Amino acid sequence: MSQVEGTLVIIGGAEDKKGNCDILREFVKLSGSKHARILVITVATELPIEVGNQYIEVFQRIGVEDVRVLDVSNRDAANSPSAVQQIENATGVFFTGGDQIRITTLLGGTQIDAALHKGLEKGMVLAGTSAGASMMSSTMIVEGTGETNPKIGIVDMAPGMEFIRGVVIDQHFAQRGRLGRLLSAVAQYPHHLGLGIDENTAVVVEGLSFRVIGDGAVSVVDAGSLVYSNLPHLRKDDDLALCGIKLHILPAGYRFHLRDRMPILDGDEDSKREGNRELK
Amino acid sequence: MSQVEGTLVIIGGAEDKKGNCDILREFVKLSGSKHARILVITVATELPIEVGNQYIEVFQRIGVEDVRVLDVSNRDAANSPSAVQQIENATGVFFTGGDQIRITTLLGGTQIDAALHKGLEKGMVLAGTSAGASMMSSTMIVEGTGETNPKIGIVDMAPGMEFIRGVVIDQHFAQRGRLGRLLSAVAQYPHHLGLGIDENTAVVVEGLSFRVIGDGAVSVVDAGSLVYSNLPHLRKDDDLALCGIKLHILPAGYRFHLRDRMPILDGDEDSKREGNRELK
Repeated sequence: MSQVEGTLVIIGGAEDKKGNCDILREFVKLSGSKHARILVITVATELPIEVGNQYIEVFQRIGVEDVRVLDVSNRDAANSPSAVQQIENATGVFFTGGDQIRITTLLGGTQIDAALHKGLEKGMVLAGTSAGASMMSSTMIVEGTGETNPKIGIVDMAPGMEFIRGVVIDQHFAQRGRLGRLLSAVAQYPHHLGLGIDENTAVVVEGLSFRVIGDGAVSVVDAGSLVYSNLPHLRKDDDLALCGIKLHILPAGYRFHLRDRMPILDGDEDSKREGNRELK
Repeated sequence: MSQVEGTLVIIGGAEDKKGNCDILREFVKLSGSKHARILVITVATELPIEVGNQYIEVFQRIGVEDVRVLDVSNRDAANSPSAVQQIENATGVFFTGGDQIRITTLLGGTQIDAALHKGLEKGMVLAGTSAGASMMSSTMIVEGTGETNPKIGIVDMAPGMEFIRGVVIDQHFAQRGRLGRLLSAVAQYPHHLGLGIDENTAVVVEGLSFRVIGDGAVSVVDAGSLVYSNLPHLRKDDDLALCGIKLHILPAGYRFHLRDRMPILDGDEDSKREGNRELK
């Protein structure tokens, strides 16, 4: 059983759009390079025209000839045959930032939702940044407080779009001091691995593993190793005590196995994949 | 061999000075309550009069009759017999915030330095906040960048006053997103436990263990469990990869054994100490 249905590019927000655009370039490459047909979905943002135009400009600049924008502002639009057709036609779909709850409430259970899952199975690449990253998992962080110690009350969770199971994703991770809120999320169900993705940093998920690209790092927070948690006895806003969390810090080039919950350190698997840094 | 010479109160900065002043009250209590003789050392700050007056006001308000300020602006002053006498007379010494390098360069190897170590052995209580917290260890963080992933280049270290061995302390921890810089520090010598102390939060170290007091939490970062680090091969400013770090989040009432590198969870030791929350 694969934890992810296809290839995902999950970006921690604020990806470079003016310089080398390494992360967006990788997404385009995975989507077919010059033959890529990119669809930007702006449902998360309340500024769909501005944000859409920005991504059209970037993707064209890095060589994509076929790039379109799909905005969805109501559920009717999310069930329209033309929207489904645009997804079926795309080799790569990109979700912009904004508010993740707009994504799940406007798209959840619609024909677009179904077309995205079907597309992934058929080899489409799905990328998302910021809110578009958070919504990838089965349960997602909706909002929460940064720069604080872990407390139950600081993080609101909700169902996500379920493109990847077994993880909870947080973005802008180091930049907004979000260790506390990610710990608060994974402590509730330590089966979930917490992926804290820094800005201008992404994980590329293929099958059961991911690799890191970009400028920062990915913090993998594994609460499965907890030896003590006071959570069962807590009231809202009480401070969390968590003993024995496992933490991995993975910058660009490093890989992680999602089911084994372990970094892949020796290139023993498929070190044939281009762009992978040699690790040992 | 004890890791700490006496009782230390190590405060993560921004301790409450207007409300209940729980942390400062605990320091006063440990120093003898009504019989406490408190000496505030302002060497870290370039505003010794303002900062000194502020602490005199707070300590008097919470019932200390004998509170004095000692400022040291050059090494001559740090060798003066009257300064030494003030330390010998104090039951509790409190280091204010400021710049930790001022503390070590102005006091290191002086008669004040010697008197502080001697005082601790005889039962004096030593407290410090912010810069006054960082300087407590053998090697201290001088400065560094917050809100970033771990990199060697982001943290400057220097010798500390060596009141506690085996740890590196960081303060304003959650509030300034300092996980990355504390990891960068402990990765260099994983023998050191990283203590990330939140604002208005403190560890009270007695013998081989500490307990947490205050509003936030203490993050204990144990890199001793590392299974992989790319540090030996890095150039300055390269991103650190760290796999298998152990992390404990301890809010008020929780205790930690410094030599065993483990939280004390069952109250099996001396749960007789007042103010300890029952853990099981």
